[in-house]
Amino acid sequence: MKNLLSMEHISNEEIATILKRAAELEAGAPSQLDRSYTVANLFFEPSTRTKTSFEMAERKIGATVIPFEAGFSSALKGETLYDTVKTLESIGLDAVVIRHKVDAYYEELLKGINLVVINAGDGAGQHPSQSLLDLYTIQKEFGTFENLNVTIAGDISHSRVAKSDVYALRRLGANVNFVCPKEWQGEFEAHQGWDDLIETSDVIMLLRVQHERHEADANFSKEDYHAQYGLTIERERQMKDKAIIMHPAPVNRGVEIDSSLVECKRSRIFDQVRNGVFIRMAILETILKGRM
Amino acid sequence: MKNLLSMEHISNEEIATILKRAAELEAGAPSQLDRSYTVANLFFEPSTRTKTSFEMAERKIGATVIPFEAGFSSALKGETLYDTVKTLESIGLDAVVIRHKVDAYYEELLKGINLVVINAGDGAGQHPSQSLLDLYTIQKEFGTFENLNVTIAGDISHSRVAKSDVYALRRLGANVNFVCPKEWQGEFEAHQGWDDLIETSDVIMLLRVQHERHEADANFSKEDYHAQYGLTIERERQMKDKAIIMHPAPVNRGVEIDSSLVECKRSRIFDQVRNGVFIRMAILETILKGRM
Amino acid sequence: MKNLLSMEHISNEEIATILKRAAELEAGAPSQLDRSYTVANLFFEPSTRTKTSFEMAERKIGATVIPFEAGFSSALKGETLYDTVKTLESIGLDAVVIRHKVDAYYEELLKGINLVVINAGDGAGQHPSQSLLDLYTIQKEFGTFENLNVTIAGDISHSRVAKSDVYALRRLGANVNFVCPKEWQGEFEAHQGWDDLIETSDVIMLLRVQHERHEADANFSKEDYHAQYGLTIERERQMKDKAIIMHPAPVNRGVEIDSSLVECKRSRIFDQVRNGVFIRMAILETILKGRM
Repeated sequence: MKNLLSMEHISNEEIATILKRAAELEAGAPSQLDRSYTVANLFFEPSTRTKTSFEMAERKIGATVIPFEAGFSSALKGETLYDTVKTLESIGLDAVVIRHKVDAYYEELLKGINLVVINAGDGAGQHPSQSLLDLYTIQKEFGTFENLNVTIAGDISHSRVAKSDVYALRRLGANVNFVCPKEWQGEFEAHQGWDDLIETSDVIMLLRVQHERHEADANFSKEDYHAQYGLTIERERQMKDKAIIMHPAPVNRGVEIDSSLVECKRSRIFDQVRNGVFIRMAILETILKGRM
Repeated sequence: MKNLLSMEHISNEEIATILKRAAELEAGAPSQLDRSYTVANLFFEPSTRTKTSFEMAERKIGATVIPFEAGFSSALKGETLYDTVKTLESIGLDAVVIRHKVDAYYEELLKGINLVVINAGDGAGQHPSQSLLDLYTIQKEFGTFENLNVTIAGDISHSRVAKSDVYALRRLGANVNFVCPKEWQGEFEAHQGWDDLIETSDVIMLLRVQHERHEADANFSKEDYHAQYGLTIERERQMKDKAIIMHPAPVNRGVEIDSSLVECKRSRIFDQVRNGVFIRMAILETILKGRM
Repeated sequence: MKNLLSMEHISNEEIATILKRAAELEAGAPSQLDRSYTVANLFFEPSTRTKTSFEMAERKIGATVIPFEAGFSSALKGETLYDTVKTLESIGLDAVVIRHKVDAYYEELLKGINLVVINAGDGAGQHPSQSLLDLYTIQKEFGTFENLNVTIAGDISHSRVAKSDVYALRRLGANVNFVCPKEWQGEFEAHQGWDDLIETSDVIMLLRVQHERHEADANFSKEDYHAQYGLTIERERQMKDKAIIMHPAPVNRGVEIDSSLVECKRSRIFDQVRNGVFIRMAILETILKGRM
């Protein structure tokens, strides 16, 4: 693995390796890197948890982090992403973590860029480090992906999390279903209501309703969405005994999920955040080690 | 002391402990922390000196500082402050320093958040670390607060510094008076002119006129304000021999204070900044140690 | 050398010392500093390569870097640059690197500020660290500046790079010519076309067309500019055997230079970036050592 670009570029074996290493790191294993690497986080879109999680993971593997203010960079002067990244490579960086609004922005980087590129979200494309932490969270809970029933509810068409997770989960043997309004199903076939999915799912993964993208076509209010597609208190009560709730966050409390369920017993929302640091340490370590 | 939220939440004994520890740190005492803590500074309002001072203090106690760009975070996507802070806790942070425009924003954090919260300014509420550095500056000068005459001049009603300082100073035995236009006195009884306060004050503390908040009700020009409420060259000449000038800054030169007085012999304006680093080291160390 | 303000404030000997030290650092020489210094980068204008290069250089000499978000600082509240820098000095910083839109902004700092000031670009003034890295790049190539033919093409009047480089290069014995539209020549006498300069130049230095400053007087399209003043594929073929191409970047591909030439054999564009880190290490080290 030379970069982490999308879940389509990573094999089941590589997934297993990263999850195993994350577990070792979580158990306190020391970093296997023999020197300090230099890294920058290029977030051209706002982020709290992904950026902060990478910042933490980088420090935990002993990396030096060079600050990069995307909103105040030469991108404003029309510099191409390639030239920005080539500049950072020339300055001596070993790796960049990038979030960018253009789908598959990384393709223009593959020819000519030698440093490590880790995709932290590309447009309506993928978000592979989120997907790996989701897999890690599920594996810790159930030990396997085989025949697990996973239901993803929400704004599927705009969600890089949904796209990343479904590729990986299906390949690993899980059954994935979708729940959302017809306009939001995108390339997937979704249920337009919960049907019997509440009672049969092992994992219910809620996605953020991206209000900022739906002003024009908002045919229903937040209350309507919650009643029809959200995880209400009533629905939570019908979930299987060991079933868990996931959400990549940020959460719209009272829309995708009732506010009182965010930290309920079966919620793994903040565990996902916690797991993300170990996953990102494992990703960085695995790729940088391979580049030594 | 589990957090630092306002001067109302901190006892005289705790104040004394922090001032004493700041003096030791200023004299070169090594940090008493046994490990490196991880901290983030969440400034949702602009700041130079408070943020930079905390950044410096954090590094001086050996902390790892995780960058947080408030203006480019998930707060833009509507995430609640609670969820942002809970996320940072899940990522592994030990403490957050927060400036936020909402009064007492920290109340929603007290239930459910376990990491250390240090208030670096809440709306028109308090600014306790500034207050502690003001106290430290006064104590270094006079050795005591008993019967000291302190006059605070300026925009009292919008000033978290005024509110924090007056609670603490009166409790510690000082006489505090106010000078400002009637519209700006807020909950306090102020003099609408200097009267005899120039000649009788040991400490004259000037506050920034917050032009950005007074466009509508600006009944006087900067020149008028300076003449009536500012510290002019003439007024400075009438001050007591050992009296000092303070200002939390940023300063509007020629408004609250004549530009030539900013670095005059009795000005402690930049000493306050210097003292702030030791006070913030003491605050962080004291609270983190208590959490060990 | 107490500060680095402009190429007019630095002697030929000082230039030679810095270039020599950069070469040693590039060859792996350890830093000569005996303690860790604390530095901040105050970029009041957007930057990728200069800011990131300083961030890297600072870490490589073992400095502690205090983050400073210019776009979110007290400058917004009307604080003078002097007061901002004096504040950072009081907080304990040893040096500041400043980019600011005001020409010779540093003059107001010289009286009263004791910490090291390194100019990373002042308005339409100078950009001395860029100039030094340009000199280093040229020296590595040709060993000397005597009688070298250097042609600078582009927006001369707005370019701090052009102004910094021409002062230094002429003093060091190079012949410097300019190519640009008449409206852009500023204080210099420029050719309004390439004439025979392609065939006779050892160094062709292209400058970015600053579209953001030329909306009103844009008498020609990007295509016209490229045809008349840009480095086209045809022109590159006529260059001398050992002649090199330089550009301070960011590059407008297809305007100043054909996109395919940016990484061609004679381009030193990304070498300039690489060299910049060693030059900035040498600058910081030389000045801080002198202040010990």
